[in-house]
Amino acid sequence: MKKINLSEAASLLKSHDNFYILTHKFPDGDTIGCAHALCKALRKIGKKANVLLDKNVAKQYSYMTDIYKDEDFSCEYVVSVDVAAEKLLADVCDSYKDKIDLCIDHHGSNSLNAEYKIVDANAGAACEIVFEIIKLLSVEIDKEIANAIYAGIVTDTGCFRYQNTTVNTHKAAIELMPLCDWEMINKIHYETKSRNRIALDKLLYESLEYYCDNKCAIMSATLDIQKKANAGADELEGIAGIPRTIEGVKIGITIREKEDGVYKISVRTNDGVDAAKYCEAFGGGGHVAAAGCTITDTLDNVKAMLVKRAEESL
Amino acid sequence: MKKINLSEAASLLKSHDNFYILTHKFPDGDTIGCAHALCKALRKIGKKANVLLDKNVAKQYSYMTDIYKDEDFSCEYVVSVDVAAEKLLADVCDSYKDKIDLCIDHHGSNSLNAEYKIVDANAGAACEIVFEIIKLLSVEIDKEIANAIYAGIVTDTGCFRYQNTTVNTHKAAIELMPLCDWEMINKIHYETKSRNRIALDKLLYESLEYYCDNKCAIMSATLDIQKKANAGADELEGIAGIPRTIEGVKIGITIREKEDGVYKISVRTNDGVDAAKYCEAFGGGGHVAAAGCTITDTLDNVKAMLVKRAEESL
Repeated sequence: MKKINLSEAASLLKSHDNFYILTHKFPDGDTIGCAHALCKALRKIGKKANVLLDKNVAKQYSYMTDIYKDEDFSCEYVVSVDVAAEKLLADVCDSYKDKIDLCIDHHGSNSLNAEYKIVDANAGAACEIVFEIIKLLSVEIDKEIANAIYAGIVTDTGCFRYQNTTVNTHKAAIELMPLCDWEMINKIHYETKSRNRIALDKLLYESLEYYCDNKCAIMSATLDIQKKANAGADELEGIAGIPRTIEGVKIGITIREKEDGVYKISVRTNDGVDAAKYCEAFGGGGHVAAAGCTITDTLDNVKAMLVKRAEESL
Repeated sequence: MKKINLSEAASLLKSHDNFYILTHKFPDGDTIGCAHALCKALRKIGKKANVLLDKNVAKQYSYMTDIYKDEDFSCEYVVSVDVAAEKLLADVCDSYKDKIDLCIDHHGSNSLNAEYKIVDANAGAACEIVFEIIKLLSVEIDKEIANAIYAGIVTDTGCFRYQNTTVNTHKAAIELMPLCDWEMINKIHYETKSRNRIALDKLLYESLEYYCDNKCAIMSATLDIQKKANAGADELEGIAGIPRTIEGVKIGITIREKEDGVYKISVRTNDGVDAAKYCEAFGGGGHVAAAGCTITDTLDNVKAMLVKRAEESL
């Protein structure tokens, strides 16, 4: 593995052809945006390129995926975008997991096995890195590329809201706004809720319970609630963030029932409470402010364990 | 009334003293931010300045208002910030409404009576204009000024999300981020909900009704609902935007009961449906995508009238 810089990455892309671009499981705006922008840019400089994307893409990204068409060729050069670890690669990428030539990412923890790597943990979105590389390919940034890059940036930074936003994030926006449908993209991701999501939120709010002097909030997305709201993967995306946003809450916990008796726990914290440490007690892990684990038991027992752990953590 | 540019506005401020800064009713982040940033900047160049602000300020703005202290002097020069019309001035500004020397605003419709006016309808927030003027005062931008300007910008543009955002909005953010508590400000305004607001949202979601083949959604914040959720002005802020965000909705209507039988109607539209025209039928008005009116009748009759008007408008 060799760490390279932006111009070296651009040179590698210029000197190869027949690209497969790998993305991560549960694809988000950043991995989809990176892949589509890079694919279009490579095609614009006369290369063949395809995106390997999970079939289960949320329909809100259709403005990128609907205009994309696979080309017919055999892969010669493999690039991964926004993929932090091998186990996070989309299933469709499985046969290429040991053959990654270039890894482009913004996760400081990146552990992917690749010949060349460009990882910038200061980038708000991997799309910021892809944008710089595309500019070095001397390709004209068309609306399709600009939309994909802008989408990755706004979905990964909460529209310039989260702490991963930097001055460079805003600089990219300034370059992209005249070229892309930024109003449409913001509206889709930040101003649109499905009726099922509204129904789900109502039931999730009803499920909220407060513990530890209201410093811990637990929200339960049981199978029953998911069914009542007719909520699919699209609707369940992002619910883990809800309990932490409640005023005064330091540990916000979302319990999502996967199958009868199996509960996926998402923990989001404020004020420096260590979410990763919280989850380690249940065999999980993650970051300081966002972590997760899985517990198999009855819902009541799961809640009791989570509350006990919250008492210890606060 | 004379229209002036940024440097003329700065010169006026430099050549006067003893400023009162007027703000608008139901103060938002932009009017509060403009007033506090300008007041602090004027004080930093040796002037006396006070802010005239409605007492009923949402507590989320306390990071600006809590550090502010009135000074004792008589007013000699009156500046209004983010105030589009006389009737919108905060009550506390009443005795100065005919004495406005300088009006700084970003509402194209500005009708305020003032000796000098600087109105830039292309500015996402009035704070963007105030920021440029402050820079021309050659004052060092401290954290207090930067926080106030950033707050005005993010609250008026939905954190760079709404269509009033421009390249200049992002440019201002780039200058302000190294100087201000931008993460804290974004968290307060975009990542924090009170428990009462959660309770209110749940009841509001329950109240949602769909008409006109689901193209019209009506949400009702009755006094009963407001009481059940223990919702005050802070919680009710921003609810008018909810129905329009629902997928497929072209006319999103929020009915807010003010007193028994008096209903304040907020209309938000998508896809070019004219909200102002919709509301004119009830003696109201506003903009193409956001307008309002007041109707006095029973809730059922009000809804029936609104649905009939929606059928005509679609």
